[in-house]
Amino acid sequence: MGSTRILNTQLLERVMSAEDAAKLIRPDMTVAMSGFTGAGYPKAVPAALARHIEETHARGEDFRIRVLTGASTAPELDGALARVDGIQMRLPYQSDPTLREQINAGRIDYLDIHLSHVAQHAWFGFFGKIDIAIIEVSGVTPDGQLIPSTSVGNNKTWIEQAAGVIIEVNEQQPEGLDGMHDIYYGTALPPRRRPIPLVHPADRIGEPWLHCPPEKVIAVVKTNAPDRSNAFSEPDEVSQQIAGHLIEFLRHEVRHGRVPASLLPLQSGVGNITNAVLAELGKGAFQNLTAFTEVIQDGMLDLLENGTLSVASATALSLSPAAVTRFAQNLGTFRERIILRPQEISNHPELVRRLGCIAMNGMIEADIYGNVNSTHVMGTRIQNGIGGSGDFARNGYLSCFMSASTAKGGAISRIVPMASHVDHTEHDVAVIVTEQGLADLRGLSPKQRACEVIKHCAHPDYRPMLMDYFERASRESYGKHTPHLLNESLSWHQRYVEQGTMRDPKWP
Amino acid sequence: MGSTRILNTQLLERVMSAEDAAKLIRPDMTVAMSGFTGAGYPKAVPAALARHIEETHARGEDFRIRVLTGASTAPELDGALARVDGIQMRLPYQSDPTLREQINAGRIDYLDIHLSHVAQHAWFGFFGKIDIAIIEVSGVTPDGQLIPSTSVGNNKTWIEQAAGVIIEVNEQQPEGLDGMHDIYYGTALPPRRRPIPLVHPADRIGEPWLHCPPEKVIAVVKTNAPDRSNAFSEPDEVSQQIAGHLIEFLRHEVRHGRVPASLLPLQSGVGNITNAVLAELGKGAFQNLTAFTEVIQDGMLDLLENGTLSVASATALSLSPAAVTRFAQNLGTFRERIILRPQEISNHPELVRRLGCIAMNGMIEADIYGNVNSTHVMGTRIQNGIGGSGDFARNGYLSCFMSASTAKGGAISRIVPMASHVDHTEHDVAVIVTEQGLADLRGLSPKQRACEVIKHCAHPDYRPMLMDYFERASRESYGKHTPHLLNESLSWHQRYVEQGTMRDPKWP
Repeated sequence: MGSTRILNTQLLERVMSAEDAAKLIRPDMTVAMSGFTGAGYPKAVPAALARHIEETHARGEDFRIRVLTGASTAPELDGALARVDGIQMRLPYQSDPTLREQINAGRIDYLDIHLSHVAQHAWFGFFGKIDIAIIEVSGVTPDGQLIPSTSVGNNKTWIEQAAGVIIEVNEQQPEGLDGMHDIYYGTALPPRRRPIPLVHPADRIGEPWLHCPPEKVIAVVKTNAPDRSNAFSEPDEVSQQIAGHLIEFLRHEVRHGRVPASLLPLQSGVGNITNAVLAELGKGAFQNLTAFTEVIQDGMLDLLENGTLSVASATALSLSPAAVTRFAQNLGTFRERIILRPQEISNHPELVRRLGCIAMNGMIEADIYGNVNSTHVMGTRIQNGIGGSGDFARNGYLSCFMSASTAKGGAISRIVPMASHVDHTEHDVAVIVTEQGLADLRGLSPKQRACEVIKHCAHPDYRPMLMDYFERASRESYGKHTPHLLNESLSWHQRYVEQGTMRDPKWP
Repeated sequence: MGSTRILNTQLLERVMSAEDAAKLIRPDMTVAMSGFTGAGYPKAVPAALARHIEETHARGEDFRIRVLTGASTAPELDGALARVDGIQMRLPYQSDPTLREQINAGRIDYLDIHLSHVAQHAWFGFFGKIDIAIIEVSGVTPDGQLIPSTSVGNNKTWIEQAAGVIIEVNEQQPEGLDGMHDIYYGTALPPRRRPIPLVHPADRIGEPWLHCPPEKVIAVVKTNAPDRSNAFSEPDEVSQQIAGHLIEFLRHEVRHGRVPASLLPLQSGVGNITNAVLAELGKGAFQNLTAFTEVIQDGMLDLLENGTLSVASATALSLSPAAVTRFAQNLGTFRERIILRPQEISNHPELVRRLGCIAMNGMIEADIYGNVNSTHVMGTRIQNGIGGSGDFARNGYLSCFMSASTAKGGAISRIVPMASHVDHTEHDVAVIVTEQGLADLRGLSPKQRACEVIKHCAHPDYRPMLMDYFERASRESYGKHTPHLLNESLSWHQRYVEQGTMRDPKWP
């Protein structure tokens, strides 16, 4: 039973198989798991639990649990549990196809919560009692401290709040992770909260390890498996155009003296477009940038290596297999330039406001008045979730939302008369970018915004339809502050649902 | 030219008539004014400017200005300027009937901005150059410091940002105001921001006076006029029922140990319902509460006098004439228990999150999934604006939105299938209250929320219609995470616009 990663004898005594650990979980329990964007999630116990649930269901018995995480995980967790119909409730962010299908079939209660809110809502008691936490770590110190894995997420809170803790020690996670984390133990419930003493993304304000009373640990499971992160495709032309518009805009901000030459700390959402933006940033126009963000993806490694980025603060290191190898090869550089924090700190409104982050996130659609839908396809089908976009969009210096102007081969316009769901209100959206161009909405009234969005962001195929709607609404609307024709405002979405396209046959 | 309120000789030399001061303002200028919810707005120059604009228009010349304020002002400012068609652009919050009419007629560009964002957006340069600030103060010290009036609002920023400053010294504002203000001069632009050292609503972190370089002062105008604040009507039955539900809920939170017996700092929006909540709070169930809010209204004076509230921090003191008299009579008590701050501090996300405010705001409507519309009647007509509700709803401990369940004698349901405009997203709304009851949405998925909102908040006349919509949507919706029938979701609003009622003739 020896282990080079579990150096505490008390915890070494709790080592058991994933199957035995999974049997500690019973129906209707609330189980909080590690994991953030495919990094640092438990690899063995959820899969063993899924098998256990499947067997129980086969006997005709009910077995579903409530699952709390940091953010999205991987097929071995969300996918495996959803496939056996084992999830009753899930929060706060997901991106698994099977889980998504079940949520949209109406079979799972999904709570889509600002990532900065999750830990405090757990502390406030809004999610009820947490029975068991399952936390992946990369090692255990001789005195029982937990060396975090590739994500921190809500692990500090889950460990503190859960009645019992199952530890997965993953020997495949780089030993060099030790020392990269900064776990801040200074949070509290109001009225005992104090200022968080972070004034630069590089500041270390906490400790490298997670504390867990040994008596709370009900099982330790050894694993040896990689994070399941997808490689990004090379940026396509549309993503490159979007990135180009945004970079030109940032240079314009610097020229006007509104931000320093090294910009302000960057927050970058997950996806191909934001990855293209990172690639474009690395082409030499900027130096000594900083990132205060949620996830460090492949694209950021390049920027850290070539000096475009001097430091990146995040809560997860979500790398493709190739990038994992590079990370290990150049560990010295990355250890100095990467800090992984709890997500309540990486996304904290106090810090996002103080640092003045530049928020860059994808979107599902925007309407002509600047309301952004980040979560619901056609207003009703959840895609992933709001993630941290709201934490950064409202509190940062600038909120930028990006998307191709169309989807499904042109059948969907991402610029619509009225957003079918609103995650970011007109009060929170500064810049909208598509491959067509960039609309700078700062200091504009709703009707001024509409002109900019239609002119700069809409696809030419949809521009006349949008302008026609806007002009008729401006004449006929009940109120003319934010003109709408309410019996038509969501008709594009309805047409897509019924006919598979937003295109109006009346238009050529 | 002597004055007991203007003790600085340099500024005394700049005293002139309101008419002469108004002539310093030219067409297309951006003019930033003091004033927050009818308190501390300039009393003479805007009215003189309106006359000047009217004369200019009579000569066939154009004259409109861009008007920035703290929040709503009064008929002498917004009303007078709107009446003569003198406003081109207005931000960030208003409640004047004439101005509202012009905005909804499409003639004024109105920017509805989170109140905590205004100062920083001005500093970021998002509103362009500010030509002139017109600031009401209650006095000038011998060395030229400005003793603020009944509101602080954005005055610090307007003075710093404007090219020239017109001071109105209002001799009718109580001299006892001197010393009640706390002007924090520690804000900065990123990347130079530091933690704001406030950990309790009673903390004083700044200075009592506003600084203004004397050479910037282009005019000083003496005035002698009261703030125009309306008296509140006695709470009606509906408001009392809403207040009763909310107070019962707060007691429930205390019983469950989620908040201390003295609660957490209260934020209370403006209006009859929130005033009823304050009245109900004063009936003895609570002691030693604190307020960290925007406006101190009549209701809070009672609570400060009887010990229910130990301290109230705000940016404006908006009192009815009767309350002004009471305030003056008991100045000693109030001076110790009231602190007036700049609105970037009263509404600062860092502080709202740290203190864990309990946010209580009115609304125009909520949908069954918990999205709240605070600003647009029937999705298109602006009512007032978002004010500070977003600052508090997203960042506080709890966000509560309140309204009667119906309006216009029952022709409008305040609970609708889909909000016609979204100011507070599903991610930001914890509690919805009507006279029918209270829906606690914490920890619930969209469909669970719908059941609670329909059951507890909807008026019985509309409950079957809402349940019918929800049930059909749950069967027929494209996605079943947030079920909607898109060709029907806004039909209630459309019916009201066309037929004057949301009631469906199909229903009995």
